[in-house]
Amino acid sequence: MNKEKGVLTVLSGFSGAGKGTIMKHLLLAHPDTYNLSISATTRYKREGEEDGREYFFKTRNEFDEMIAQGEFLEYATFNGNSYGTPKAYVEKLLNEGKDVILEIEVQGALQVKHLYPDCLLLFVTPPSAEALKERLVGRGTESEEVIAERLSISSRESSLMDKYDYLIINDDLDEAVEEVHELIQREHLRTAHRKNMISDIQTQLKQFSDI
Amino acid sequence: MNKEKGVLTVLSGFSGAGKGTIMKHLLLAHPDTYNLSISATTRYKREGEEDGREYFFKTRNEFDEMIAQGEFLEYATFNGNSYGTPKAYVEKLLNEGKDVILEIEVQGALQVKHLYPDCLLLFVTPPSAEALKERLVGRGTESEEVIAERLSISSRESSLMDKYDYLIINDDLDEAVEEVHELIQREHLRTAHRKNMISDIQTQLKQFSDI
Repeated sequence: MNKEKGVLTVLSGFSGAGKGTIMKHLLLAHPDTYNLSISATTRYKREGEEDGREYFFKTRNEFDEMIAQGEFLEYATFNGNSYGTPKAYVEKLLNEGKDVILEIEVQGALQVKHLYPDCLLLFVTPPSAEALKERLVGRGTESEEVIAERLSISSRESSLMDKYDYLIINDDLDEAVEEVHELIQREHLRTAHRKNMISDIQTQLKQFSDI
Repeated sequence: MNKEKGVLTVLSGFSGAGKGTIMKHLLLAHPDTYNLSISATTRYKREGEEDGREYFFKTRNEFDEMIAQGEFLEYATFNGNSYGTPKAYVEKLLNEGKDVILEIEVQGALQVKHLYPDCLLLFVTPPSAEALKERLVGRGTESEEVIAERLSISSRESSLMDKYDYLIINDDLDEAVEEVHELIQREHLRTAHRKNMISDIQTQLKQFSDI
């Protein structure tokens, strides 16, 4: 029997909502359960980084060629550097039955859902807009312009919340982490992740009723 | 703030898979959580039954008129008697924020999903086709014809399994009951059931970023 495919989860949500922290604690709490994708990037390799470990380091030309060949699940550019999730690597893991989590920004997340309608799309948010504002204003070190820009980005991001499957309210970190874990594990019960079992039952019932 | 709508769950699956037993134990284990719909039927009222409690008892003409007016979520006919789920009653419960469970046959279940794409569609199955056959063959009191007919119905039903959201493997009854309970409760985290919260966050972030 073929192995069922792994679950692809996209963890996204407001900047400042704690996606990265949830991700780290999820991996700490369940170290052998989840796999991360390794992104390709055009940014320079920093000291101590290794190609194929932190990132796949690419030249601008190589990166653009990968875009042209449709080799990315999603990609985006920040501060002049491009980052992308290579499709082939993610599919290899999924086909081995491994659960993969991608932590990406809102726009990229919806690109992935478009390519993989069966993926689990999670939106991380503080419990209220007020709480998000407090986190964005944060340590009092940012200028008013920066804060205004962040709030305006959050407002744009919020218009896409209802495209997601579930909201993760990041109020208590441990609870949010366990919620993400349980939602991913529940996905394995979905018919979309039990194709082999369904097809076995169908084949056998057909044999029984043909006798 | 308006109350979020309740979750509509359709519990369906193979005849003989134990839908009714799961349903009973779910209601026993969580008596204040779930609401059942009351079906309309053309069959005669039996002694001890009350209109509006076991069923809404209808004449054939009344029932046909309800079909014509589109008043059923689903309906079906067995042994010459018709049974239907009245839409208005289910919607009233959902709008009050109550979780409603319908236990219906496979064909009716897909009719409901068509009308309510957000409903939770659960397919109850024994762990294998072999186990289903054993349950259908059962107590050895049935003729070969009856058993053959049952297997052929199951085989037809199995072709629709992948239209469902989740499979419930009814191997250990208590586990199956808790699985159904957890899946329904998880639905409340879905963005489709958090429309008020999403709209509050959107409105407030817009105000923040407009200042």
